[in-house]
Amino acid sequence: MGTQTQQVFDIATYVGQVAADARAASRQVARSTTAQRNQALLATADKIQSSREKIQQANRTDLDLGRKSGLSGAMLDRLELTNARIELMAQGLREIAELPDPVGEISEVIQRPSGIRVGRMRVPLGVIGIIYESRPSVTAEAGGLCLKSGNAVILRGGSEAFNSNISIVKCLQHGLDSAGLSTDVIQFIESTDRSAIDSMISMEDCVDVIVPRGGKGLIERISSQSRIPVIKHLDGVCHVYVDDDACLEKAMAIVMNSKTHRYGVCNAAETLLVGRNIAQKFLPDVAAVLQAKGVELRGCERSRNIYPEMLIAVEDDWYEEYLAPILAIRVVDNLDQAMDHIEQYGSEHTDSIVTQNLSHADRFLREVNSSSVMVNASTRFADGFEYGLGAEIGISTNKLHARGPVGLEGLTMQKYVIFGDGTVRV
Amino acid sequence: MGTQTQQVFDIATYVGQVAADARAASRQVARSTTAQRNQALLATADKIQSSREKIQQANRTDLDLGRKSGLSGAMLDRLELTNARIELMAQGLREIAELPDPVGEISEVIQRPSGIRVGRMRVPLGVIGIIYESRPSVTAEAGGLCLKSGNAVILRGGSEAFNSNISIVKCLQHGLDSAGLSTDVIQFIESTDRSAIDSMISMEDCVDVIVPRGGKGLIERISSQSRIPVIKHLDGVCHVYVDDDACLEKAMAIVMNSKTHRYGVCNAAETLLVGRNIAQKFLPDVAAVLQAKGVELRGCERSRNIYPEMLIAVEDDWYEEYLAPILAIRVVDNLDQAMDHIEQYGSEHTDSIVTQNLSHADRFLREVNSSSVMVNASTRFADGFEYGLGAEIGISTNKLHARGPVGLEGLTMQKYVIFGDGTVRV
Repeated sequence: MGTQTQQVFDIATYVGQVAADARAASRQVARSTTAQRNQALLATADKIQSSREKIQQANRTDLDLGRKSGLSGAMLDRLELTNARIELMAQGLREIAELPDPVGEISEVIQRPSGIRVGRMRVPLGVIGIIYESRPSVTAEAGGLCLKSGNAVILRGGSEAFNSNISIVKCLQHGLDSAGLSTDVIQFIESTDRSAIDSMISMEDCVDVIVPRGGKGLIERISSQSRIPVIKHLDGVCHVYVDDDACLEKAMAIVMNSKTHRYGVCNAAETLLVGRNIAQKFLPDVAAVLQAKGVELRGCERSRNIYPEMLIAVEDDWYEEYLAPILAIRVVDNLDQAMDHIEQYGSEHTDSIVTQNLSHADRFLREVNSSSVMVNASTRFADGFEYGLGAEIGISTNKLHARGPVGLEGLTMQKYVIFGDGTVRV
Repeated sequence: MGTQTQQVFDIATYVGQVAADARAASRQVARSTTAQRNQALLATADKIQSSREKIQQANRTDLDLGRKSGLSGAMLDRLELTNARIELMAQGLREIAELPDPVGEISEVIQRPSGIRVGRMRVPLGVIGIIYESRPSVTAEAGGLCLKSGNAVILRGGSEAFNSNISIVKCLQHGLDSAGLSTDVIQFIESTDRSAIDSMISMEDCVDVIVPRGGKGLIERISSQSRIPVIKHLDGVCHVYVDDDACLEKAMAIVMNSKTHRYGVCNAAETLLVGRNIAQKFLPDVAAVLQAKGVELRGCERSRNIYPEMLIAVEDDWYEEYLAPILAIRVVDNLDQAMDHIEQYGSEHTDSIVTQNLSHADRFLREVNSSSVMVNASTRFADGFEYGLGAEIGISTNKLHARGPVGLEGLTMQKYVIFGDGTVRV
């Protein structure tokens, strides 16, 4: 299988065949029972554990190639499938099996005066295309979530994890097969050619939604070129706004957690906004603690008047997703100016207000247009597990379909179901 | 205002300004109260009634131009704003005012072990672009629905109703103004140039969703070219499948209602599928009644063996949305063949099974992938009013966001709202 790439003559034809097979398989998996899909997930988990050595052998090939091609230490670390990470992959699939099945649920059934009953049934989307650059464990996680929600999936992983990904896909396909499902339900594009992505995102007849996971460049390119709807977030320029009416203790805890809990994640805070009446009191304390933690501060003029040991924030800083121990700081006149700042510079990902003022909290919740809006909570909570979704396929800053962390529900749609008894319209 | 078109130098610049104004106004209307928006709707209704003569004067200009340019009688009829139709427009706006406000509703709030509460708040989409060819009353209806759901809207009506539309938009803007809302909340593109549409559908920074209403050609062109998500249905190739286990009396009522209640509507049945074991009994009866009603029948070979006085259905017939007194008829082996036919030739709009067999009904409901799937009910029920949505902006065969009749809910989105009390992630 791993050598098939070289034999593929025409990539568009190959991807087209994969997509057509996925469309056919999507009808089968949509009809499958919950028990069947769970069985496939559990069998995959077992197979991943029993194939540990094979998976690690494939992974070593990727690591060797990565070293030769000069991947950074951090990249190699992300790529490595240690024993513990393989266990986590298997465990993750078992957890997905335990989640409630969203498919088939009928809700909101009402009786209409005409005699019909009208409800909505949750059904799979169909075929999902996942394009990712990240850790090979995404193969198991994304494949598992799509399967659980009754969809067929086409996976296109990064070239650096090519062999690792294929070894994991084999386990998934073993799981499908052992549950009596077609192995076409989870397929992997065995080509590292960029044009394979171009093909995937133009096959609107066979693919219903594209989920890109990776760097901003990849996501931007895909969403501007795709003929298929894309569930995406480009970046997470998250704000904490410490209102004049904030409790200083809560503000300190939330700012520190939002910024320093982890740096390289999309729900970390990148900009701190501080009300001008509380800034004199709050800013010196929080700035000192942040600096002691090694966080570089870049402040507006008013911030630097209060706490001069900051770098100067330039216009670009307000747009920046640092993903690093750097924080931009701005003193604002009031709630309106804070919300204007978030509207102008934010990325509609996650923004939090710290305040004891109920009206301010209410306005912030209503008016800030982000996928997650928080009161007195750390931005780090913006996450499918933390929200109780069980797992997430990504975080969406789309306005249509799914907004915020996307779990199984975001991989389904609702159609109308109508029950009559020979009922006709008068 | 009506002559502004000629003065506009660069259409893209003009539409860009309209869109930027709409974006700014969308923040204001999103913040407005339910009472304010309802007041604007009611004031518009009053204004439409008190402006009846002015509206009819503008309408006469359109009718005169239409006659000169050779519009068909049917088109002229659709265009005409009679006293009764103007009353209906005003009444429609009053009904929209009475609908519950979807905006601000917080649902599904759960307490998480971490200490946060997580819920979802319904908020407006932002700016909606409506491109329509149809009756001028769509101006009031679409404008009203967008306003009620807290959105700003850009309307682009057909050239044949240009003056009528502008006279109605003036009433809407009067309503906005009298409720203290910016008149930019509802704007009308005062250019009949086709390039205005191209501009609208490329302004993804200022427009959040496009809703095209009109012929298939218009919708196809817009959805293939738009850089903005489109809520659309292309056509309604709706099926009634009379299962072997159908009650003949119900089948007769449903087929007749689905086909002959109205011909030119998207939820009329275009193809009748009949199980082979019931066909001998059912087909001659229903065919005779349909023919007596003046419906032309086009049958497959097996249908014509049973009832020879049909035309021969060719492959293209199965794809056709006749919108006319024509019905394609096919005898199928069983439920599976019926569902295969619908999968292959249908348009995912509305399909109905007539059966007394619970397992067949259940499989049809689950497996037929259309936006509305029905059991023992007429396809004619696929309609926002019939489903209890209060009103509809259109019917969607999209898979993402909204599927089926789209009411106020489809013009909103849900964001996550998180409530903590200084809560941080461990």
